[in-house]
Amino acid sequence: MKTEKLTCMSLCGFLTVSSIQANEPAERDYKQKQLPNIVLILADDLGYGDLNCYGATRYTTPNLDRLAHSGVRFTNFYVSQAVCSASRAALLTGCYSNRVGIGGALFPNSLIGLNPQEETIAEILKKRGYSSGIFWKWHLGYQREFLPLQQGFEEYFGLPYSNDMWKYNIDGSVATPKQNKNKANYPPLPLIEGNESVKEIVTMDDQAQLTTMYTDRAVSFIEKHKKNPFFLYLPHSMPHVPIAASDKFKGKSEQGVYGDVLMEIDWSVGQVLEALEKNGLTENTLVIFVSDNGPWLNFGNHAGSAGGLREGKGTSWEGGQRVPCIMKWPGRIPEGLVCNKIAATIDVLPTLANIVEAPLPTRKIDGVNILSLMTGDQKANPREVFLYYYNSNCLEAVRKNQWKLVFAHQSQTYEGFAPGKDGVGGKTGNVQVEPALYDLRRDPGERYDVKDLNPEIVAELTKIADEARADLGDGILNIKGANVREPGRVSVQ
Amino acid sequence: MKTEKLTCMSLCGFLTVSSIQANEPAERDYKQKQLPNIVLILADDLGYGDLNCYGATRYTTPNLDRLAHSGVRFTNFYVSQAVCSASRAALLTGCYSNRVGIGGALFPNSLIGLNPQEETIAEILKKRGYSSGIFWKWHLGYQREFLPLQQGFEEYFGLPYSNDMWKYNIDGSVATPKQNKNKANYPPLPLIEGNESVKEIVTMDDQAQLTTMYTDRAVSFIEKHKKNPFFLYLPHSMPHVPIAASDKFKGKSEQGVYGDVLMEIDWSVGQVLEALEKNGLTENTLVIFVSDNGPWLNFGNHAGSAGGLREGKGTSWEGGQRVPCIMKWPGRIPEGLVCNKIAATIDVLPTLANIVEAPLPTRKIDGVNILSLMTGDQKANPREVFLYYYNSNCLEAVRKNQWKLVFAHQSQTYEGFAPGKDGVGGKTGNVQVEPALYDLRRDPGERYDVKDLNPEIVAELTKIADEARADLGDGILNIKGANVREPGRVSVQ
Repeated sequence: MKTEKLTCMSLCGFLTVSSIQANEPAERDYKQKQLPNIVLILADDLGYGDLNCYGATRYTTPNLDRLAHSGVRFTNFYVSQAVCSASRAALLTGCYSNRVGIGGALFPNSLIGLNPQEETIAEILKKRGYSSGIFWKWHLGYQREFLPLQQGFEEYFGLPYSNDMWKYNIDGSVATPKQNKNKANYPPLPLIEGNESVKEIVTMDDQAQLTTMYTDRAVSFIEKHKKNPFFLYLPHSMPHVPIAASDKFKGKSEQGVYGDVLMEIDWSVGQVLEALEKNGLTENTLVIFVSDNGPWLNFGNHAGSAGGLREGKGTSWEGGQRVPCIMKWPGRIPEGLVCNKIAATIDVLPTLANIVEAPLPTRKIDGVNILSLMTGDQKANPREVFLYYYNSNCLEAVRKNQWKLVFAHQSQTYEGFAPGKDGVGGKTGNVQVEPALYDLRRDPGERYDVKDLNPEIVAELTKIADEARADLGDGILNIKGANVREPGRVSVQ
Repeated sequence: MKTEKLTCMSLCGFLTVSSIQANEPAERDYKQKQLPNIVLILADDLGYGDLNCYGATRYTTPNLDRLAHSGVRFTNFYVSQAVCSASRAALLTGCYSNRVGIGGALFPNSLIGLNPQEETIAEILKKRGYSSGIFWKWHLGYQREFLPLQQGFEEYFGLPYSNDMWKYNIDGSVATPKQNKNKANYPPLPLIEGNESVKEIVTMDDQAQLTTMYTDRAVSFIEKHKKNPFFLYLPHSMPHVPIAASDKFKGKSEQGVYGDVLMEIDWSVGQVLEALEKNGLTENTLVIFVSDNGPWLNFGNHAGSAGGLREGKGTSWEGGQRVPCIMKWPGRIPEGLVCNKIAATIDVLPTLANIVEAPLPTRKIDGVNILSLMTGDQKANPREVFLYYYNSNCLEAVRKNQWKLVFAHQSQTYEGFAPGKDGVGGKTGNVQVEPALYDLRRDPGERYDVKDLNPEIVAELTKIADEARADLGDGILNIKGANVREPGRVSVQ
């Protein structure tokens, strides 16, 4: 069997690293030289409008802007759900997060995690000889069996969950049960090396060092693996609250600590790009930058911007699920491309599998290969449909091309509530969302319901939603086995 | 006196072309070779989200995207008022439109026009030996004394006002007084060459030829003037309704006739760029693309998109006044720059005056030199403040950096009204807007009023507004002499 004939369409689940190693050592060696390195940078709660190249003001993001200028900038790129754990599960598995039994955010007392039987990007790439490292926030289960080393990664250094899952208030005091019952009961926030906790994150000064600390490790990882193909996954802790920048960036922006933190993330991207360049890897590396969900708007001046899109994190409105996404791959991705077609984090895995000619996971996935969009094929439209699942894994909306049909559901809302300030969150509310159809071409802000004018579109999207419900369910009750300590994935499969 | 010492700061109103010609013919000749050509392309009712590089979907704008990639793309660029005539008056004079006595749109029965005593961009550039041509829509007075040849232009071919100011319905029938009293009384819609009407625009087929017809003239103008500095002003009639594309573009987009029309405008831009290239003028030409105001949203699928900004044409919300703006000038404007600082069409005149070292108008103007923004000076912020005048020339809002303070006013609204379809406009309403403060950094969609949280910002912007009212008035009643058949500009000067 020739390895170059292995495409993601061949579904050769039985092909393993050892079979390639045993049969075709020379060819594997040759192929490895051609295999691109993959750097996947994930920001946390960074909104659609938070980079200069997406319209951000009051601070600068020159490295990310340059990245966009020399590659592709997506304007209709989605996360699977607008919350940390669900979003990460989807990114790493190529599945809507409810397919792999993850919804919402895992907490320090959660017993579940990403089912080790799911194949992550790291595991897919491992089949082609990649070394994978993750430096930063995992958030897919903190117990040993769920940690990155058990999910295809060789190196892990970072937080197991969000940086606000500690017992401290923004002023450094310990939260009392009256202030915040959850916080008061949280265990120490551990920094993990491999499978072991090596330090506790205690102060805002500790938080301020995270970006630098991880960046250093990322640069070392590049140095160490420069002769072999590698997958470097950098899921930042910032700009998730509590936000803090190191001394290098304190006061550097015109937008307080939020701007400083964004400038430090941009600096980190610059360090990674510089390390690639120094090691002669720029040409043969695909760099992807994306966010895990929209801005946490009730944190006011400590939150990002959805750039005119509706609502933010924790909702299935565009401001929650549409995020910046930039990719650079010299020679393959044209410079200065802007892609306005639909794409999503679930498409990253099958696209990488296609690029490196690795088999797709044997279990069903939801992602599609979007290489045609990355390379600027104007006629390509590999993802016409996107499903918006959220609260309790309910199907809240469905999009086909420019049309988004929203179903009746309960939603968090930031509108009508004064945002918080300086790290103290403001209040949010809940509203009953009524069914509506939005034309996202003319109305990406989701202000004008046009369902009465377009009954045929409503009918078409309703049919797509019904098919999705039959496949993926609609609500947590349909997902048995969501706790992956039980065998299986979801009952509808 | 050395001409190279003439800057726009010197205000040498007495310096004329003849004085340069008489005293320093050799030097003038030399300087002219260095003087860049200026191409200013103005789209009509094209919204903030209507180009691919600003997020548009369902059609392609490759020439404009390439223009952005090779120059600067502004994300906070404003027109003076969100309606045709007022917007054009401001662009050509460097003044808020109420300063020059123009508010709203002029109609075929309007007797006023742009005061010939105002100095237009064409007149400013003429002092440095430029030849100016305008091909397309004037809309600053249709009577002879107000037409372009009397305002600094050497050539004019186009419509004197909007392409919907004719007596026809979208289906080609003649409007009855019952259907539309205004339309029924309109005179024939004339195509003007110089000062004379040469043809009547009668059918939608005539409309469909406009873009091609004007593009041909623009290309000829470039050929004709390739050896002298020129100012080519291309104010398109499209995509103002009634929209129509020529056979070249019919059915080419996935977005019906609106997409086809955008693709034809993009083609036109490409033709102009190609003509520059063929004549060896690319390097020495500053190309500016901008729109006159936001999308006319009640035209539904025949309207553009404000790209998530609030409302559209005819309002002082961001969707009305913030527009795409792209500039290219090889060697002076860095490639791939994104400028998120505030800039406005009123800044074009003083910037061009600075570039060509021409004196500013002797009358007071409101624009500032934004060359520092175009050349990527990160620290520059020449326009911290922008004033939003609209309905009856009232001051409806003021912006300083990221803060926008909205004052109580009556506003047109599209929200809550079903948009029209296929060229028939939907209804709009009027609402009383209450005072509010928006943080446009985190909330460019103007959804979250934060005035109660930021009293010091409210106070600062209130003071700026009071100063503006003392200078520019607040409401049409303060503007005497708005009819420029009377001498003078506005009473407050």
